[in-house]
Amino acid sequence: MKAINLAAKLATFTDHWSPRIVAGYNGNDIMVVKVQGEFTWHSHADTDDLFLVLKGSLTIRMRESDVHVGPGELFVVPKGVEHCPVAAEEVHLLLIEPAGTPNTGDAATAAVKQRV
Amino acid sequence: MKAINLAAKLATFTDHWSPRIVAGYNGNDIMVVKVQGEFTWHSHADTDDLFLVLKGSLTIRMRESDVHVGPGELFVVPKGVEHCPVAAEEVHLLLIEPAGTPNTGDAATAAVKQRV
Repeated sequence: MKAINLAAKLATFTDHWSPRIVAGYNGNDIMVVKVQGEFTWHSHADTDDLFLVLKGSLTIRMRESDVHVGPGELFVVPKGVEHCPVAAEEVHLLLIEPAGTPNTGDAATAAVKQRV
Repeated sequence: MKAINLAAKLATFTDHWSPRIVAGYNGNDIMVVKVQGEFTWHSHADTDDLFLVLKGSLTIRMRESDVHVGPGELFVVPKGVEHCPVAAEEVHLLLIEPAGTPNTGDAATAAVKQRV
């Protein structure tokens, strides 16, 4: 058993919006992801969605307001709330979602989450 | 709704081994804590225990081996595994546990988790 270095895991890939699973916690996937540009509007009917910014600055658009999340900041999108993450420049994130949650809110369009 | 700045939350207190709840995720408490010295050996029968080091360097002693967790590193102690966190100098951590989990593994000796 050893610690998981998030920067080292992030250094293993370059693509955007494709989360990598780095650990598990009670049936949740702990993931790192690089994002840039605008994602799709979506919601998760059954789960909150936790974003922790490791590098860069993320905007999470929601229908009622936007939230700006900088390095060392986190935000939890409550379940059922429509949101659209946007990153003007590349952002590195830690994400937590129940294992199997589609990142787009829809299994048909979701990225496959690889383990690194 | 706004982002939660972990450093700002940590700046609101100085005591050790007393987690503060900063957010919730699907019935879990997202907490920050400052630790220094040696905690008590304990285990959680019903939950994994996630440690993310924000500042400093933490040693998690377990019966079979120790794990060293530095800044930007995380470690998940599997449920049921006895462990004892040790910090030679002050360490700042993000913790995730199901709401109501006693930090010592025993409600009788656990710290009260305040919300900040």
